[in-house]
Amino acid sequence: MPRIKLLPMLALAFMSLTAWSHGSEAAGAVSLADVVNVQKYFRAIHVMAMLLVGFGFLMVFVKKYGRSAATATYLLVSVAIPLYFLKDSLGIMGGVELDIDRLILAEFSAAGLLICAGAVLGRLKLFQYMLLAILFVPCYSLNEWILLEGGLGLIEHGALVDTGGSIVIHAFGALFGLGSIFSLTSKKEFETPIEADATSDRFSLLGSMVLWIFWPSFCAALVEPSAILGTVVNVILALCGSTLATYFVSLALRKKVSVADIANATLAGGVAIGSTCDRTVPAIAFAIGIGAGAISTFGFAVIQDKLQNLIKKTDTCGVLHLHGLPGLFGGLVALFVVKGIDVGAQLSGIGITIVLAILTGLVAGKLLSFAGSRITPYDDEEELD
Amino acid sequence: MPRIKLLPMLALAFMSLTAWSHGSEAAGAVSLADVVNVQKYFRAIHVMAMLLVGFGFLMVFVKKYGRSAATATYLLVSVAIPLYFLKDSLGIMGGVELDIDRLILAEFSAAGLLICAGAVLGRLKLFQYMLLAILFVPCYSLNEWILLEGGLGLIEHGALVDTGGSIVIHAFGALFGLGSIFSLTSKKEFETPIEADATSDRFSLLGSMVLWIFWPSFCAALVEPSAILGTVVNVILALCGSTLATYFVSLALRKKVSVADIANATLAGGVAIGSTCDRTVPAIAFAIGIGAGAISTFGFAVIQDKLQNLIKKTDTCGVLHLHGLPGLFGGLVALFVVKGIDVGAQLSGIGITIVLAILTGLVAGKLLSFAGSRITPYDDEEELD
Amino acid sequence: MPRIKLLPMLALAFMSLTAWSHGSEAAGAVSLADVVNVQKYFRAIHVMAMLLVGFGFLMVFVKKYGRSAATATYLLVSVAIPLYFLKDSLGIMGGVELDIDRLILAEFSAAGLLICAGAVLGRLKLFQYMLLAILFVPCYSLNEWILLEGGLGLIEHGALVDTGGSIVIHAFGALFGLGSIFSLTSKKEFETPIEADATSDRFSLLGSMVLWIFWPSFCAALVEPSAILGTVVNVILALCGSTLATYFVSLALRKKVSVADIANATLAGGVAIGSTCDRTVPAIAFAIGIGAGAISTFGFAVIQDKLQNLIKKTDTCGVLHLHGLPGLFGGLVALFVVKGIDVGAQLSGIGITIVLAILTGLVAGKLLSFAGSRITPYDDEEELD
Repeated sequence: MPRIKLLPMLALAFMSLTAWSHGSEAAGAVSLADVVNVQKYFRAIHVMAMLLVGFGFLMVFVKKYGRSAATATYLLVSVAIPLYFLKDSLGIMGGVELDIDRLILAEFSAAGLLICAGAVLGRLKLFQYMLLAILFVPCYSLNEWILLEGGLGLIEHGALVDTGGSIVIHAFGALFGLGSIFSLTSKKEFETPIEADATSDRFSLLGSMVLWIFWPSFCAALVEPSAILGTVVNVILALCGSTLATYFVSLALRKKVSVADIANATLAGGVAIGSTCDRTVPAIAFAIGIGAGAISTFGFAVIQDKLQNLIKKTDTCGVLHLHGLPGLFGGLVALFVVKGIDVGAQLSGIGITIVLAILTGLVAGKLLSFAGSRITPYDDEEELD
Repeated sequence: MPRIKLLPMLALAFMSLTAWSHGSEAAGAVSLADVVNVQKYFRAIHVMAMLLVGFGFLMVFVKKYGRSAATATYLLVSVAIPLYFLKDSLGIMGGVELDIDRLILAEFSAAGLLICAGAVLGRLKLFQYMLLAILFVPCYSLNEWILLEGGLGLIEHGALVDTGGSIVIHAFGALFGLGSIFSLTSKKEFETPIEADATSDRFSLLGSMVLWIFWPSFCAALVEPSAILGTVVNVILALCGSTLATYFVSLALRKKVSVADIANATLAGGVAIGSTCDRTVPAIAFAIGIGAGAISTFGFAVIQDKLQNLIKKTDTCGVLHLHGLPGLFGGLVALFVVKGIDVGAQLSGIGITIVLAILTGLVAGKLLSFAGSRITPYDDEEELD
Repeated sequence: MPRIKLLPMLALAFMSLTAWSHGSEAAGAVSLADVVNVQKYFRAIHVMAMLLVGFGFLMVFVKKYGRSAATATYLLVSVAIPLYFLKDSLGIMGGVELDIDRLILAEFSAAGLLICAGAVLGRLKLFQYMLLAILFVPCYSLNEWILLEGGLGLIEHGALVDTGGSIVIHAFGALFGLGSIFSLTSKKEFETPIEADATSDRFSLLGSMVLWIFWPSFCAALVEPSAILGTVVNVILALCGSTLATYFVSLALRKKVSVADIANATLAGGVAIGSTCDRTVPAIAFAIGIGAGAISTFGFAVIQDKLQNLIKKTDTCGVLHLHGLPGLFGGLVALFVVKGIDVGAQLSGIGITIVLAILTGLVAGKLLSFAGSRITPYDDEEELD
């Protein structure tokens, strides 16, 4: 019956449609610089998709803690971005001229923060994620300032090769998280299994794919227009490489391919290509991706359990294996890939990051532990309704 | 075994890859105007992501009605866009010159429609959503024409401050929806609880995040290139503000933080910043976001139940609290934020929107109610297989 | 308690925010050609979203095989893109100058591959998807070369009308898949029902929407800037048309509307408009969409069961009905829509595609069948953990 009523309308509408025409598509006078900046903003939106849906849903793999993981992601991003923006506007430890560059740098700090939060996921109360953000952003900014802006005079401005943040974002975030779990894993939490199921896995794979898709924009966010295409192709090939390596190494090391490996280690190519994304060629990028995927999968399949049992601490999302090791690998591989690289600066940058991230992470974890601990880890019911 | 076969192939492929080179990246002669228009189209695609995955999946929170909500979203968008496009091409109540502007305006009308549909979600048959679209678009266009195009000579063209549609899109859509529920809530429907579960909540959070991510493109869709970056930064900070406010107010007003608040009220900053997104500064934008998040959460936590019990009607998605109140707040706040604003025009615009939306919504609801009602509300099984 | 600690910090932060200012947004000297190429890259990212989340999650409708479908998608894309990139770089069967064009062409080949994989989904082992990619890409490239590049001298370069790949991508992929299922459906597999549930359906609808959203970028990926807006509007209207037609035809042919129809046939307008997307007007595009949606829904509702029972083979995702028939329809409709079209070239292109796709698909299926078969079809547990 409804069909009968609607069909004549549709027919009428369709006939009228033949009257449509394309207007003479034109636009007002604008400058090329405006257009270039708007393109930066499109990349900034891509990065935002990675932060919220990407990192957020990758962490939804914890079956009983998915809604909290998404909520925590919202809170972490919403503290980190204004906080970094404020810091940078005030010219504390660096400071850029353009709002859009500031926004992208703020997103980078939020990315580092989300990585770090992955280590303690499910074992913080919601308000503690916000405290974590408040503690993380200044430490991250300090490291960023030393490595990229010549802060404290330790590394010459521009000497470090790390365009897409293998060292500054990924390794720092992961190692800060690793430092913080020392004070943020109770015996009960360590012994509570982290459960996933078919639905939480599918959400996690969705987050993973969103990260994969927009990763080229992450690495190219602040790259000059003429170098963007090369960067993008390198990043995509690195991700293809790590995806393939993940399958083969996961199958080789385990009886079956692990969905967790597929959701995580596939991305290791993006992590590792960060340092050299605008300085290498597709074939090398593909190789870096394969190496990073293999390292990451080995980390998840072999190192993770051994290390966690050794230190009796939990790295919920295995950020050491997705971001820590591949990030360091990416920073080191630059030594072999980039001609005329300043070896001292590169090694100093890596060394400073390792020390600073772990130390500040340890302190942050200790401070956070004073703010209380959850009764039931990995459980949405405790704080959400 | 398969590994053994594939590895040599991969090795071979990799070696050949070293032959790759970057072509000299060049492009044919094009005009800057073309490039600017293509950038508008990228924003139009972002808005489309908000319409389908954003609004669509936000409505998937209804556990038993998620597939219908997605289907309804498809149908609503597919009626509204050609219908508005047709109206505008024929020059009825306004009419723009460029196809891309027309497309964006059509998307805006679809956004208003999806907001309105959120009020009656689950209590219309599928074909009635299409009828709703056919009734909504002309009413929306009339209000848009009066407020923005000087239609009927009530408000001077260009006098209303509402770049991102707090009034024209959000408040209108929500109040139209509110008007329509008076004839579209049966006693049985009112008494049927709307159930969510962990999976429907996660889908809803996904939709919410997609809205959050692309909201800057929504507000900046028709903004001049030179003003886009300022707009984008304001919108992002407003969203950060409302996200933080939602957490604190939700916790303060309820025992636990509500996932529904997190999925919805976090977006109120985007709703409210619409009017002033290109006319304010980041600090004010952040404050507007905090205010809007607080108002919206208060609406969901306190007003919603009381109001629904008072009028014995159901606003399924609480669009009054996400879009109605924050939209009006955004329109009013412009009076204090924008220097030299035409107070009369702004207040008239808000007043006209309130009256027109509720009245036309009441009529549309009545008309729709003649087309029948569902037997079982909020149930995919009734119409889908 | 936590609120008490954080509120003063937020207040402080907010006050400091008033110090923010917009920097003078500027950018270094760049060429318009760079900007145009970066816009191509944005479209390439949109296409990547379609490949991974779009096609990937559309295939997650198989309840017990969702994680494997996503994994397979990752592997298919990660083999196809480097492989096509390599082929094209080496100048085998064609070869373009720009890396970004090469990347987009590689994505197109991956799209064809994912379509083809939909036909055998759930009945290949994971490593066989990679073999499928290795077999598919050369066959696809051969057809592409003959149809678009004048390969073998069969069709004059530029004579075929197929901008968005109705014939070259969609029909080829679907018919190759159809060819391959002849050797890749065991009796047990044919008799094993393919189950979906409310959750797998919602994931599938998500994938469907992502395809719908970014389809304009797919069709416009390699279109000249000045023709992009017209293309985009046509594609969106075609999709609106197929979405509406799907609802009406599904309701007419079945007792209830099928969610599978809504997830799939809604996209048929995008498939069919491919050939003529930059050569027609909105009204015709809308009509093509309606036709394609009707054909596709008829295929799913009527032809699929009959055909499968006739040939005793399974086309898991019904790619014949989403991509095959609407793709051929789109290629044929160009004969009536495009003035001065080379009828012989168009018909030859379609004919060659049909023959080549089915033949190479048959051979590829046979070769793949030598590499073993699954014990339990459509089951994540067999290979994943």
